[in-house]
Amino acid sequence: MDLLILSIVVSLIGFLFAIFLIFDILKKPEGSEEIKKISLAIRKGASAFLVREWKVMGVIVVIFAIIVAVLINPFVALSFIFGNFLSAFSGFIGMSIATRTNGRTTNAARESGGKAIDLAFSGGAVMGITVSSFGILGLTIVFILSITLLQKVGPIMMITGYSMGASFVALFARVGGGIFTKAADVGADLVGKIEAGIPEDDPRNPATIADNVGDNVGDVAGMGADLYESYVGATVSSIVIAISLVLSSKSSFPIGEKGIYYPFLIVSLGLISSILGILYIKFSSKIFKNLSPQSALTGGTMISSVIFAIISFVFTKIYINDLNPFYSVFLGLISGVVIGLVTQYYTGGKPIKKIAEAATTGAATNILAGFSTGMESTLLPLLILSFSIYGAYLFSGIYGIALAGVGMLATLGISLSVDAYGPIADNAGGIAEMSHQNPEVRDITDSLDAYGNTTAAMGKGFAIGSAVLTALALFVSYAQAANISVIDLLKPNVVSAMFIGGVLPYLFSGYSISAVEKAAFKMVEEVRRQFREMPGILEGKDEPDYKRCVDISTIGALREMVIPSVIIIISPFIIAFVFGKDGLGGFLAGSLISGALLAIFMANSGGAWDNAKKLIEKGMFGGKGSPAHKASIVGDTVGDPFKDTAGPSINILLKLMSIISLVFLPFFLKFLK
Amino acid sequence: MDLLILSIVVSLIGFLFAIFLIFDILKKPEGSEEIKKISLAIRKGASAFLVREWKVMGVIVVIFAIIVAVLINPFVALSFIFGNFLSAFSGFIGMSIATRTNGRTTNAARESGGKAIDLAFSGGAVMGITVSSFGILGLTIVFILSITLLQKVGPIMMITGYSMGASFVALFARVGGGIFTKAADVGADLVGKIEAGIPEDDPRNPATIADNVGDNVGDVAGMGADLYESYVGATVSSIVIAISLVLSSKSSFPIGEKGIYYPFLIVSLGLISSILGILYIKFSSKIFKNLSPQSALTGGTMISSVIFAIISFVFTKIYINDLNPFYSVFLGLISGVVIGLVTQYYTGGKPIKKIAEAATTGAATNILAGFSTGMESTLLPLLILSFSIYGAYLFSGIYGIALAGVGMLATLGISLSVDAYGPIADNAGGIAEMSHQNPEVRDITDSLDAYGNTTAAMGKGFAIGSAVLTALALFVSYAQAANISVIDLLKPNVVSAMFIGGVLPYLFSGYSISAVEKAAFKMVEEVRRQFREMPGILEGKDEPDYKRCVDISTIGALREMVIPSVIIIISPFIIAFVFGKDGLGGFLAGSLISGALLAIFMANSGGAWDNAKKLIEKGMFGGKGSPAHKASIVGDTVGDPFKDTAGPSINILLKLMSIISLVFLPFFLKFLK
Repeated sequence: MDLLILSIVVSLIGFLFAIFLIFDILKKPEGSEEIKKISLAIRKGASAFLVREWKVMGVIVVIFAIIVAVLINPFVALSFIFGNFLSAFSGFIGMSIATRTNGRTTNAARESGGKAIDLAFSGGAVMGITVSSFGILGLTIVFILSITLLQKVGPIMMITGYSMGASFVALFARVGGGIFTKAADVGADLVGKIEAGIPEDDPRNPATIADNVGDNVGDVAGMGADLYESYVGATVSSIVIAISLVLSSKSSFPIGEKGIYYPFLIVSLGLISSILGILYIKFSSKIFKNLSPQSALTGGTMISSVIFAIISFVFTKIYINDLNPFYSVFLGLISGVVIGLVTQYYTGGKPIKKIAEAATTGAATNILAGFSTGMESTLLPLLILSFSIYGAYLFSGIYGIALAGVGMLATLGISLSVDAYGPIADNAGGIAEMSHQNPEVRDITDSLDAYGNTTAAMGKGFAIGSAVLTALALFVSYAQAANISVIDLLKPNVVSAMFIGGVLPYLFSGYSISAVEKAAFKMVEEVRRQFREMPGILEGKDEPDYKRCVDISTIGALREMVIPSVIIIISPFIIAFVFGKDGLGGFLAGSLISGALLAIFMANSGGAWDNAKKLIEKGMFGGKGSPAHKASIVGDTVGDPFKDTAGPSINILLKLMSIISLVFLPFFLKFLK
Repeated sequence: MDLLILSIVVSLIGFLFAIFLIFDILKKPEGSEEIKKISLAIRKGASAFLVREWKVMGVIVVIFAIIVAVLINPFVALSFIFGNFLSAFSGFIGMSIATRTNGRTTNAARESGGKAIDLAFSGGAVMGITVSSFGILGLTIVFILSITLLQKVGPIMMITGYSMGASFVALFARVGGGIFTKAADVGADLVGKIEAGIPEDDPRNPATIADNVGDNVGDVAGMGADLYESYVGATVSSIVIAISLVLSSKSSFPIGEKGIYYPFLIVSLGLISSILGILYIKFSSKIFKNLSPQSALTGGTMISSVIFAIISFVFTKIYINDLNPFYSVFLGLISGVVIGLVTQYYTGGKPIKKIAEAATTGAATNILAGFSTGMESTLLPLLILSFSIYGAYLFSGIYGIALAGVGMLATLGISLSVDAYGPIADNAGGIAEMSHQNPEVRDITDSLDAYGNTTAAMGKGFAIGSAVLTALALFVSYAQAANISVIDLLKPNVVSAMFIGGVLPYLFSGYSISAVEKAAFKMVEEVRRQFREMPGILEGKDEPDYKRCVDISTIGALREMVIPSVIIIISPFIIAFVFGKDGLGGFLAGSLISGALLAIFMANSGGAWDNAKKLIEKGMFGGKGSPAHKASIVGDTVGDPFKDTAGPSINILLKLMSIISLVFLPFFLKFLK
């Protein structure tokens, strides 16, 4: 218990560091009036979306909190709301800063590439550190309350409620943000690039601000909430398993009570390592003048991982005097890194050259090549996950499986920082284009953006991997807490429920892809209307009505996200009542298998099409404007909702259904055999 | 045992009926010299492919038979070879007749639509009846031998060996045939429709004969072998389960020995019902002059189902005096029908209108719309399967699950007849085009072809549904025979193996799609070469070298099928040794969940794109030559390998891995805990 003070202290250090970064960013010049104007429009659009999203979310959260209060316990409901609030708040901070960093990054690019990348990375680091610090702090507070003032409710119920709060925010941020961003992007591309023949991010395109807003609400706020959820979920499930094992006083859990506190401390060590890695990136670029931004970012990530491995090794040795838990943590850490590298290969290596080449025989072969690449790319990540699960179990039993999740996510501080760098760089590029910067400045922002694409693809791989481990850990803790000793694949209720579980990721992806389509179609109509009614826009004389386009994406996203969200939320209840509590286990397992594969497939094929198009734009296979380029744009457009809407939304689906099952377990136990 | 005479008699009746149909077809006129020439070229190409495929298959079968003989038992190896032979032989008969019916159908279309459809259906019925009759006869012979002369080896090992033989043929026929047909189709389309601007099936396109050969080797021989495998596999697994339950004398199996003979008789009743349904179709079109061909075919299928339901009800009542097994059979029968209808809706109803409309905003939105439709289309089939599994179990335990598979497949005679009608009609249309028939004749063949598309889509849905049920039944009989009482999802070896199992369908589909791409690319090069070196071809003066194109597809298919086939064959061994025998169970379950979804998704989106294109060609959204039409061709080309190569190949993957696990079980039991 005393050790929990340590995790509070570490999270406070994190806040101080984030505040320092924020001041450092805000004192940088905002740039010309034009840059300021565009940046402000993006910021306003993003905030407007967030506020409206919160209103919808607020209603559903309150209803659900009442259900929790009635069926489970009022304090669990409060803990759920607290989890909601903290995740939403850290997303808000991260996004506010990101939308204040984008224009400043464009401005810094006028001086040098080094300054621009440093600034963009700082903006991302605010998100990374805020999310990690709030995640740890909130969880520690809830846990301490549950073992002091609220002993009757008990820690398992309290912390799972908190975790479910984070999951709800993730649902809205990822699904809503994902639909928003791709409706704007696809809509802008369809009418701009294809119909009007104007380049991407051209200020004459009315949907261009919406597209940039989308990067912030989807890739910054959405990704942040997704990883916040994983971070909290993995930690919570390891604690739940430890508590259950201690309570049932199984001889198979020799660590005893220390196992409950261990995860808190591991994530705290991870936060410290992340801060050190971020400092390395910020200083190394100043000390080694010739260091490429890419090697700085990769170097920082690696240094964090190494520091984390060393200090958690030492800590485990001292605290537990048994290295087995450390090995499980370490397996998770390594898996995260390797999955990132595999993703990088499939979305950037030889495969994308093959896809670009296939574009020379038309859009169909380009699509097919991306497809087969995405499918083949599922092998290695799943093998890695599969063996690290098995290994983690061999070291520390089912507790080890959850620890692998904790290990993968412990250094979230730095990995999310690198992730969030991408959309900021992307925005900076868009602002450079719209504010008519010199070609040299645009070259710099383009190169920042190109590297951001790589980090974004890696980030997606990492997000899926961590979501799968987290969902699996939650699944195991569900079984543990439900006292289910066997989920038997030979029982028909388990098999039947498993098939239905497998369908959900498909159904959900189908819905979200058609949601993007519908909203994009509305966007196309609006842009066409503006071009028609204000002919001055295309001549560059009239300013387009950007705000209308932002509104259309906002409304489309909020409307379309309701049905899939409701399906996710109510499914576990229906399944539990039809197929029983082991059937619910089979259902979760089925969705996990099918979802993990579908998510990796969609994220990687989407990323690969995107980069194949970029390869052609660099001059290969005919370059810009060639038939191959046109074919590759089709691939890219198909890939957009794959990688940024449907794929990432599956992460949420998997985790949310598991956490709902876990939270409502006391209710299910009351009514089911 | 005496009752087995009945199934032999029924299969002999089937043979007589097939011979009657064959004579009836062959006495019809072959038509003009031009028709004869084209039909002969297709027949020669198809036979050449089959012979070369058999050579490759022969080598692998002999090697594998030796392995079976050494590790298991020489008689099981012989039974395996016997299964191979019978399936290959019935495929050969079906395909020979199909390639003799196509030209005759074109010729009959010069007289009337009714005669043409009657002939095309007769051609399909030869395949349907031959496959069912051989399936029953072979299985009965092997079973009788195993309980008389070969009592030491035992029926379980003998009949599973036989079933594995059918699976091997299916592997080569489906995967090889699938690559062949789509390499030719995609290659022909890419260079013909898109580059040279000539219509489909234009005789100037050198790949056009290969395309027509492909329909026969892929859709006739491939589909036939696939369903032969399911038919035998489902029956075998129900017998294996019955034997295991009788041997372990479980009180939970009150039917006792009768349960072993019951499946033989059920499939025999199904064959009789199928013959009656076929007779209905053939006579009804002569009696009711105004009956549309569509209602004749649908009517025949329904009548078969009703007859089968009634006679199997009566038989069950008399033979077992307990209707529970009948209810399980009936659930399977109904599921098959409903899955067919659902498939028909998603590949022909409102969804394809939406997809066609999406083509008006370009290829990307057309692809996305087909995608989301395919994804959403997984829900109903999986719900149906899931509930019929659960229901079948409630009626008759795990034996009931296998019986549901038997029930779904019992009327294979008629469903395969309707299926095989499609490619014959397609070929007849191609031959009409190539032999320059009058527009009225082509209208008739076009309408036959259009209806053939619907039956083909339904057939694919049925093939997947039955493959899933068969694979599940084999999985359950594996567990039963292995005496595994629990496959626990909470054990890490089971979960890890399940993840890996889930990857295989993706890996396999990825490979087969890129195989099509590679082979299609070679085809494009060859066609370009012919156009370049013989400029007279496009002017209609020189005859293209059709044979070279057939060779290219043949070589491409045979080369590309090796790696995926080897992966399927060796995976169960590796998994068994790494994860143990319950791990192998988890592996099979993982592949089943992921594969069922992926197969349905790919088959339905492929079918939907195809029909959306046809809708546009009928004049909607701009009609032929419009931008929407061009966009829809991209969707169709993407969908081709989805629905005809990758999707159906998954059927084989699921069943083959299960049957290999079952056959090698005695070996695994010796070496594994």
